Amino acid sequence: MKNVNGTFLYMKIANSIERQINDGVLRLGDKLPSIRVLHKEYGVSISTVQEAYYYLESKSLISSRPKSGYFVIHDKNCILRSPKTTNPPQEKVSKDACDLFSNFYQNTRRHGVVNFAWALPAPELLPIAKLKKSLHETIREVADGGTNYDTIEGSVDLRRQIAQRTLLWGGNLSEKDVVITSGCINALSLAFMAITEPGDTIVVESPVYFGVLQLANQLGLNIIELPTCPIDGMDIDALRTTLKYKKVSAILIVTNFNNPIGSIMPDENKKKLVKLLEQYQVPLIEDDIYGDLYFGKNRPSTCKYYDESGLVIWCSSFSKTLAPGYRIGWVAPGRYMDKILKLKRYHSIATNSIFQNAIYNFLVNGRYDHHLRKLRTTYCSNSHKILRGIKKYFPEDTLVSNPKGGFLIWIELNEKVDTQKLHERANKYDIDFCPGRMFTLQNQYNNCLRLSFGMLWDEKVERALQKIGELANEMINEAEEIEVLSN
Amino acid sequence: MKNVNGTFLYMKIANSIERQINDGVLRLGDKLPSIRVLHKEYGVSISTVQEAYYYLESKSLISSRPKSGYFVIHDKNCILRSPKTTNPPQEKVSKDACDLFSNFYQNTRRHGVVNFAWALPAPELLPIAKLKKSLHETIREVADGGTNYDTIEGSVDLRRQIAQRTLLWGGNLSEKDVVITSGCINALSLAFMAITEPGDTIVVESPVYFGVLQLANQLGLNIIELPTCPIDGMDIDALRTTLKYKKVSAILIVTNFNNPIGSIMPDENKKKLVKLLEQYQVPLIEDDIYGDLYFGKNRPSTCKYYDESGLVIWCSSFSKTLAPGYRIGWVAPGRYMDKILKLKRYHSIATNSIFQNAIYNFLVNGRYDHHLRKLRTTYCSNSHKILRGIKKYFPEDTLVSNPKGGFLIWIELNEKVDTQKLHERANKYDIDFCPGRMFTLQNQYNNCLRLSFGMLWDEKVERALQKIGELANEMINEAEEIEVLSN
Repeated sequence: MKNVNGTFLYMKIANSIERQINDGVLRLGDKLPSIRVLHKEYGVSISTVQEAYYYLESKSLISSRPKSGYFVIHDKNCILRSPKTTNPPQEKVSKDACDLFSNFYQNTRRHGVVNFAWALPAPELLPIAKLKKSLHETIREVADGGTNYDTIEGSVDLRRQIAQRTLLWGGNLSEKDVVITSGCINALSLAFMAITEPGDTIVVESPVYFGVLQLANQLGLNIIELPTCPIDGMDIDALRTTLKYKKVSAILIVTNFNNPIGSIMPDENKKKLVKLLEQYQVPLIEDDIYGDLYFGKNRPSTCKYYDESGLVIWCSSFSKTLAPGYRIGWVAPGRYMDKILKLKRYHSIATNSIFQNAIYNFLVNGRYDHHLRKLRTTYCSNSHKILRGIKKYFPEDTLVSNPKGGFLIWIELNEKVDTQKLHERANKYDIDFCPGRMFTLQNQYNNCLRLSFGMLWDEKVERALQKIGELANEMINEAEEIEVLSN
Repeated sequence: MKNVNGTFLYMKIANSIERQINDGVLRLGDKLPSIRVLHKEYGVSISTVQEAYYYLESKSLISSRPKSGYFVIHDKNCILRSPKTTNPPQEKVSKDACDLFSNFYQNTRRHGVVNFAWALPAPELLPIAKLKKSLHETIREVADGGTNYDTIEGSVDLRRQIAQRTLLWGGNLSEKDVVITSGCINALSLAFMAITEPGDTIVVESPVYFGVLQLANQLGLNIIELPTCPIDGMDIDALRTTLKYKKVSAILIVTNFNNPIGSIMPDENKKKLVKLLEQYQVPLIEDDIYGDLYFGKNRPSTCKYYDESGLVIWCSSFSKTLAPGYRIGWVAPGRYMDKILKLKRYHSIATNSIFQNAIYNFLVNGRYDHHLRKLRTTYCSNSHKILRGIKKYFPEDTLVSNPKGGFLIWIELNEKVDTQKLHERANKYDIDFCPGRMFTLQNQYNNCLRLSFGMLWDEKVERALQKIGELANEMINEAEEIEVLSN
């Protein structure tokens, strides 16, 4: 039942309670009013209150105890301290740094491993039965069984759906602005090839997704890593100074729910950033692959929204939300459309039409939005669980990013913990994650790590998290013993 | 029924007759012995003789006339004269030459066009119902509905099938030698990126597939086009001289049933070529995408067969035989395996598993071989039809390649015919083909064209071919009239 403003009644109640929890009015362990009380107080049905409580439970904010009612299980103070804005050095690095983790995709495939490493949704969270149905339907209907080449730019139906969805952040793209790619990494690859030449310099956040480092390195680009805040993202002043003194060919930023640092660039900064682009005529590759996975009410905006001169190349995909293996992503290349189309044709000709049509079916029937709502709730719930776990199990001085979306968390441990060694130890317990060193070409973030919480959270995951914490504590103790001995 | 040597009896009879036709013993219009006569002569059943005649009919060599029996319809002299070995100039060219035909893929998509342009099998020739079945099966069985990333190198089952098939040309590859790619062009793209840097020089045949020109150009490579014979392929002596005096980073050759010139490099030359590679330590990208489409008895060999030092990067795909739109190709990169794996990971991560598994199913059940036999017969038949048509409709001095496989024919017209203009005129009649100028960065082949005969041959196609011939004759007449007037 919706009220006048179009919000469901139960959501109104749930939002009020959530606000009180976040403001510290309701605290960890507090008992919530009984369903009967709220039913009278709000003048709504019992089932509406129940629904509100179920919703809060699904977000891991409250929990029911048999015969006792509902209790707050979320500690607002559990929002641990964030790491400081990074301050990456700019030393010459060996090009081989990228190879450090080149076997990453192979190693983490072992069976039975608790996988905090991959920035991917676990299959259990995906609507696989519905996707299969959509595929079967597509195969029956598609012309010539999909054996033909599609157009270079890809399915017009799917592109229109993608364009329509930009309304969620105020975008007004049309299908003509969008090109389908083989996942987001392929969109980034085409974008880099369109706007840079070997020897050019690009600017990225620090830490930065290792795939970007590997790709840029392979293309012979020089990489400047800029200071980045775990809350607001890239330091715009640092960027301004860089643009003033260096010739930069491209900037790449994950604006929303950054991988790995979890930041979300405020609208004001997005606007400032786009102005800088225009001033220096430098294109921005905006990797917005996590943008749809917000925990709050609204989808965050993009730099593309502020882009009037076509300098923003907006990239994303369905890999973090629907089906990584289908390899369907897209790019809205602004003024670089012609170049992107040529590059796609030269390097791979076309994208297969079956997956495009299957995803189109999924979108046009509203199944995607339904799935996203569920997925966001799960990720939000997991974010609370992982934060609680880190507070409980990890060393006290641990700093963490505070994700407002996506399913990645960035952790800074005591400097005594070398996370590459921690990684080796964790591997022995069949636990995998990404050491911080993967996310930079400089010698830094050796005490950091990235955890993914895109899984079905269960006892095994909880124990694995606990084990990482124990191993970290163990390493600190060892280091302190050595210090004592050597004094 | 097979005889001792494993050949079907009807094939033995058919081969004898085919040899007589090719040797000119049986000539155009000759009546063949009646079925009854051969039945007695060979001591085989009536149905065996019938089968032999059906086979020759399917190859467009003979034809039955009601109540009169079978007649030879193939003219051995119809094998028109070949063009001479090319002699490409080596002038500086504008990099934009590649853009001349950048809209090629878009333009030829118009409905109702007789398409001699695309080097693709027409959907009518593909086993679409069976492929769909294979896809449905795969979707039901594949883990997690195929939503997971596959391994970088691709399905081990499919790679094993591909490796097993190399036995057909004496290869002994294993699944470990093969990486799945997004079609053959993606295999070429990865290969170029693995072994060249911008500014490097590569050697190709002349004429050369325009996709190679576009790709190499985009990667900043300098391109040397070498003399190429329509029968034997690249001139090995010219290559030797080039390697002696120039630093070359890579050679790319379509060794079998070359696109566009139709050549097939003799084994002896393949061997020589591989020796040259070893002497100069230059890698060869061997594009063998047409190799399975032989008209003769056996699949031609490859340079990979002679390769002991891992310098041959063997590339192919299922796009010319099964399903272009599925975008499944492969590369056997020899000593460049590590680089290729890295590049694939950096630029696109993985190939979707559903199409790989569907094609695997198709292969492992023997459906692929069955389909290929049928397809080869159709193409062989079409090759006779197009040669007959050219002889009948085209100007007398027309030179053509004589394809022994694949479905492409290279035509050199009287120098008075500008094939770009011919193309414009043909377009008005809804006929499309590739002007020769597409296949070079130099100013040459302006009187050449490439026709694809990978279609279901019917009256409409025959009339379209006739129209091209008429238009060519028209252009020669016009040119001659102008000559007369200006004298």
